[in-house]
Amino acid sequence: MLPFTTLKTRTDGNVLHVTISHPPLNLIGPAFVSDLVDLIKLIDDGKTPPVIVFDSDVPDFFLSHVDVGKIAEYRHEAARLTGEPSLGLLLRRLSETRAVTIALIDGRTRGAGSEFALACDMRFATREGAIFGQMEASLGVVPGAGAVQHLSRMIGRGRTMEVVLGSVDFNAATAERYGWVNRALPRADIRAFVDALAHRIGGYPKAGLMEVKDRINAMTLSSADEFRVDSDMFSAGVKRPETQARIAFLSERGLQTRGRTELDYASAILEFGGTSA
Amino acid sequence: MLPFTTLKTRTDGNVLHVTISHPPLNLIGPAFVSDLVDLIKLIDDGKTPPVIVFDSDVPDFFLSHVDVGKIAEYRHEAARLTGEPSLGLLLRRLSETRAVTIALIDGRTRGAGSEFALACDMRFATREGAIFGQMEASLGVVPGAGAVQHLSRMIGRGRTMEVVLGSVDFNAATAERYGWVNRALPRADIRAFVDALAHRIGGYPKAGLMEVKDRINAMTLSSADEFRVDSDMFSAGVKRPETQARIAFLSERGLQTRGRTELDYASAILEFGGTSA
Amino acid sequence: MLPFTTLKTRTDGNVLHVTISHPPLNLIGPAFVSDLVDLIKLIDDGKTPPVIVFDSDVPDFFLSHVDVGKIAEYRHEAARLTGEPSLGLLLRRLSETRAVTIALIDGRTRGAGSEFALACDMRFATREGAIFGQMEASLGVVPGAGAVQHLSRMIGRGRTMEVVLGSVDFNAATAERYGWVNRALPRADIRAFVDALAHRIGGYPKAGLMEVKDRINAMTLSSADEFRVDSDMFSAGVKRPETQARIAFLSERGLQTRGRTELDYASAILEFGGTSA
Repeated sequence: MLPFTTLKTRTDGNVLHVTISHPPLNLIGPAFVSDLVDLIKLIDDGKTPPVIVFDSDVPDFFLSHVDVGKIAEYRHEAARLTGEPSLGLLLRRLSETRAVTIALIDGRTRGAGSEFALACDMRFATREGAIFGQMEASLGVVPGAGAVQHLSRMIGRGRTMEVVLGSVDFNAATAERYGWVNRALPRADIRAFVDALAHRIGGYPKAGLMEVKDRINAMTLSSADEFRVDSDMFSAGVKRPETQARIAFLSERGLQTRGRTELDYASAILEFGGTSA
Repeated sequence: MLPFTTLKTRTDGNVLHVTISHPPLNLIGPAFVSDLVDLIKLIDDGKTPPVIVFDSDVPDFFLSHVDVGKIAEYRHEAARLTGEPSLGLLLRRLSETRAVTIALIDGRTRGAGSEFALACDMRFATREGAIFGQMEASLGVVPGAGAVQHLSRMIGRGRTMEVVLGSVDFNAATAERYGWVNRALPRADIRAFVDALAHRIGGYPKAGLMEVKDRINAMTLSSADEFRVDSDMFSAGVKRPETQARIAFLSERGLQTRGRTELDYASAILEFGGTSA
Repeated sequence: MLPFTTLKTRTDGNVLHVTISHPPLNLIGPAFVSDLVDLIKLIDDGKTPPVIVFDSDVPDFFLSHVDVGKIAEYRHEAARLTGEPSLGLLLRRLSETRAVTIALIDGRTRGAGSEFALACDMRFATREGAIFGQMEASLGVVPGAGAVQHLSRMIGRGRTMEVVLGSVDFNAATAERYGWVNRALPRADIRAFVDALAHRIGGYPKAGLMEVKDRINAMTLSSADEFRVDSDMFSAGVKRPETQARIAFLSERGLQTRGRTELDYASAILEFGGTSA
């Protein structure tokens, strides 16, 4: 494998384990995006096994939101693969990549981190530790990297409104009930379950797997244009003063560090005292 | 607020509480539709808080079906907003209105009452009292105001067939399992849950909320043409003799009064002795 | 009724009970497809009651997969109705047929058998005995008769990926949670539940039922072109050497007989020792 800086890889037969390892928070910044671009290239060049399992070795976090101070930089990295500076289009490319992708989620995943999980082909979450959130609306912007596209189709209008407008955290049990994840499993069991599924699929003929993936994507993956609209709205929205004020407020309270603001985002944002205008 | 005749309103910070209060049954007739038209105008003129919570103060009923004796009249009222005499198009306008709408459902909601709840952005239902039904097929007609559009997308082909063809009542637990409502909650907890969510959303930047709503609607709200087809089919179908025969039968048994027919519609319609032709 | 060879029929008022009875496994071969073509013709000619309930009297099996040795033959039979040799297009025709169709599933249903169940308007499954599987990917091909179309819309991208790529068996509880079936019910209760629903619907005006079905289909049934793509990909894929090698392996182990391979397919396919290429 290439020398990734935020990912650890381990090949086990037909399965590639990719562990996101970018302490302290697994933030999505240029380093992670650069690694993701390289990984997708490897996959599509046939240089990896046919099944990829993503997990994290950073406690409490599967994959965080984007690094709000480096939006231009990570978008620049994304453009290396797609030609366009958009994380949403990159994650859409991940959904189309030539391997079966499984997210094994233990810990928080919010914003674009959650959108990464949504871009994977399947999601399995620990009952004890997985926490999901799309918190963009609490900052005044739309999710920029596919959450509306995926959730609208998977969990329907009402629940997508609650998830995205509410911007609160969801535990694994609720995420399973809503259809946001495939299954919520006890931490003691999830690794064996996911590994068995991954190895099983890895033993099936690859041409057929890719045909299946293409047919399901044809039915379920929104067009690049739809992803582009969200991406552009996010990019424009994040510059608005009411959004910048909230980011500044949260940054003073420890956003992007291992503190209460990241551990309990839904409570932290409520403490913002500005107006809603 | 305007002097509504079927709605009581109360503003609490960024949240407008709208209580449907049109005894004895909260029937959807010209008075309610007129009020709804006026409310949507207020919302879209920015004269209300950004979050609206709908509930009812009529025991056993959240919002009933349409007044079968005043179909022309309420459709006429609906046209004041949309230019077309269609409740379905009016409810579709509600789904697009410039506020976040939440239905807090305790009691029965059937037919177009259920379609009103479906047109809201989110639905929370009491485990003890909420009852849902699309009973149009039992009368020989299609739901006219969006039920097929919303349910097909939210709960899928099989369950929509069961709900609409079966015309039976569903309790909150089943409605939650099917994805018809966001959540079923104990009556003791639902008010605090909904209020907390509403106030939370009300504190977020409004421009972002409306962008999110628009993006989700773009993915999940059927076109006006689809709503129009349903509306026209309902309007034509309700005139057929087999439908009129059933309405006449039920009217003799207390339809649109606080009796057994409205409390247990699914049993009442089974007693119709005519043919199915 | 016509003299079916694989179906037993019994009329009970407004309900036609159709029992699939094609021992030892209720395989989908030319005999079953021929009967299905004739049944759909009867339905669409108005020669049956308006509600059809499908069940099986073969122990352990509702409806098996296709007879892998008679693909050309059953496709030829399907063309009698649709003009095209495709089981997928025939099952899509079943979804549009002029009666309400309900599958009462007790036992295994995999591959095209599951796709038959998916083509029905509703699915009710016994908690004790119903088992669902789309095992095509384990053989290297896409499901050819609508599974991707129906599941993508009903259970979403992530769970459809798991179901189809994983090719494992799902019990009724999981199928209910995923939205694959309407409800999982105890074997002791399911007959009464389904009969009550069927007779209820059978007593409603038929014109309205068919309008409802048409409107729901307009929202939820993929186009004939989409079914045709899957059908053609299955037909081409099944000829590939890696698929033929797996079918040969399984056939040696008792595929299409009442043995361990059919009872526990997911374990049997894991024993294939060939490569995944």
